[in-house]
Amino acid sequence: MHYQLYYWTGLQGRGEFVRLALEDVGAVYTDVARVEGDDAMNAFLEGNEAGAQPFAPPFLKAGDVVVAQVAAILHFIGPQLQLVPESEAQRLQALQLQLTIADLVAEVHDTHHPIATVLYYEDQKTEAAKRAKDLRDNRLPKFLGYFEQMLQRAGGTHVLGAHSYVDLSLFQLISGLDYMFPKRMTTLAGNLPSLKSLQQRVAERPRIATYLASERRVAFNTNGIFRHYPELDAA
Amino acid sequence: MHYQLYYWTGLQGRGEFVRLALEDVGAVYTDVARVEGDDAMNAFLEGNEAGAQPFAPPFLKAGDVVVAQVAAILHFIGPQLQLVPESEAQRLQALQLQLTIADLVAEVHDTHHPIATVLYYEDQKTEAAKRAKDLRDNRLPKFLGYFEQMLQRAGGTHVLGAHSYVDLSLFQLISGLDYMFPKRMTTLAGNLPSLKSLQQRVAERPRIATYLASERRVAFNTNGIFRHYPELDAA
Repeated sequence: MHYQLYYWTGLQGRGEFVRLALEDVGAVYTDVARVEGDDAMNAFLEGNEAGAQPFAPPFLKAGDVVVAQVAAILHFIGPQLQLVPESEAQRLQALQLQLTIADLVAEVHDTHHPIATVLYYEDQKTEAAKRAKDLRDNRLPKFLGYFEQMLQRAGGTHVLGAHSYVDLSLFQLISGLDYMFPKRMTTLAGNLPSLKSLQQRVAERPRIATYLASERRVAFNTNGIFRHYPELDAA
Repeated sequence: MHYQLYYWTGLQGRGEFVRLALEDVGAVYTDVARVEGDDAMNAFLEGNEAGAQPFAPPFLKAGDVVVAQVAAILHFIGPQLQLVPESEAQRLQALQLQLTIADLVAEVHDTHHPIATVLYYEDQKTEAAKRAKDLRDNRLPKFLGYFEQMLQRAGGTHVLGAHSYVDLSLFQLISGLDYMFPKRMTTLAGNLPSLKSLQQRVAERPRIATYLASERRVAFNTNGIFRHYPELDAA
């Protein structure tokens, strides 16, 4: 299968969770907007292409199937890429974990955009500072503590007991948070030994290491979901 | 199968999307916290029960399976309840649509809690007023316009071409928004003929009509996701 991934150029964003899965197994894919420009997504978003109409990027085309929403994309390609265990119960657990990651990702986005996505960060900095304090103090410990516990329950190496797309997404989540909140994540790291170790192991997987060193890996930046604004960070 | 649904008492919240699916087919289920109290959820949330550990309610127990996250629960029980078409492509589309509904539900929640879930609405009213304006002006037309378009593309009667849990969730979404934003939804309704007609048809389904008239249907209130604060509404 030759996959076609559609996502905004210039940032990792939500597309990166899909990209990491494709890269990890050496799947053949085209990152379409990087070749043809962001406008290449319009026909799909406007309903002028065959297949399901996405609400927003990222979306993936695989033959006749068009699927949007990161967790749905990974649920779809996970079995094809052998990035999820065989059992239905574990595939359901993978979906549930991925959706919980997505919830935190949405909260991270809204931390720098607590009032409106259409406004600049600079227009909502006061509110962002308040929301960032809640994220740092309450939400990050709650979510990351949960993922740490899930990892430990599964034996400490893989959150589903075997390598899966959820491990790759946890790597991306922790890496994004390390970039966005270096001080806070340094403090929290002591309570997240299994997650930090998972992050390291994923980064060392041969294809992932090659990918991370390549030009295909756009650097974290302040156009993405994870944005480093020093004023939003604190130990 | 005798299902056990776990969700907070006293509000519809996210649990209602699952409850409507169970009620629509006359499934046998126990709404556990309503019988045993909210503390009945603790053992699951603390990881002291067998099966997958939920991050948060709602979660559902079905035999040995424990599954959390509304979209994952519906993806799991949809086939069992015959509330989703047979084809894998349509089940994937159901998941994608349900996740897009979940995204809007999260935005609706954050409209009255834009700064922190741990604070009262009264402590973030100024920010909520700003966020509500963006939701009313930009986000509701965008999301609801998309769902209207999806419904029309599918023939106008069922969003997947046949009755499904997504129709039930769209009913709940529109009903919640009607309660929360009566003025704004009156304005928008003119552009949402298929959604409004779907909402009416779902309400008239015999088991749903019985359910809505029963004491099991908790009224919308200001403890739930959809909260009517008149100051957040405008035409």
